[in-house]
Amino acid sequence: MIAHTPTPPYYAVIFTSMRTIHDDGYSDTANRMLELASTMPGFLGVESARKDVGITVSYWDSLEAIRAWRQHPDHIHAQNEGRGKWYVSFTTRICRVEAESSFLCQSAKK
Amino acid sequence: MIAHTPTPPYYAVIFTSMRTIHDDGYSDTANRMLELASTMPGFLGVESARKDVGITVSYWDSLEAIRAWRQHPDHIHAQNEGRGKWYVSFTTRICRVEAESSFLCQSAKK
Repeated sequence: MIAHTPTPPYYAVIFTSMRTIHDDGYSDTANRMLELASTMPGFLGVESARKDVGITVSYWDSLEAIRAWRQHPDHIHAQNEGRGKWYVSFTTRICRVEAESSFLCQSAKK
Repeated sequence: MIAHTPTPPYYAVIFTSMRTIHDDGYSDTANRMLELASTMPGFLGVESARKDVGITVSYWDSLEAIRAWRQHPDHIHAQNEGRGKWYVSFTTRICRVEAESSFLCQSAKK
């Protein structure tokens, strides 16, 4: 559930969204896009949660990899569907990850 | 729910976590930390969602602001409580936001 990413630097796309009440194919497309993203060159992992607001963070090894994913024809089609019926609003932020630290509780290590 | 942030560059802290089943003061502390963070110099906004995994992204105007927040005594106390009882695992990523774009559907603009 928490992405295992390499030593920084690498890149993150933070996609924060407010949904409409209509599913209308959303879940299928969202799952398909996650699967497709994971096959793209430079994909490092993804984390996603929704409660009121939805946050999906995908991790990539370069800006070029992010650009290629944003321009994939199936993804462009999904983006257009999203603007048309699934999202009230969203913000996309492209970031360079500069530092990372993790914690795993002792009992989970056993 | 979606943070209104300034024109990049600015900074983001992506905190992704897996919770234990115990509340034991978690909700109160989490809310108190969000309130406290919002009073810190350089705080720009926060977005948070949980479903299986929890993702909280806070936005800051500088690395110095992030450092001051991480070192606030009340926050350090909460971090220690978190490691002791609330989190199975977590990853913190510090990022420089390099680009941002937003969408607001036509009917929401009216």
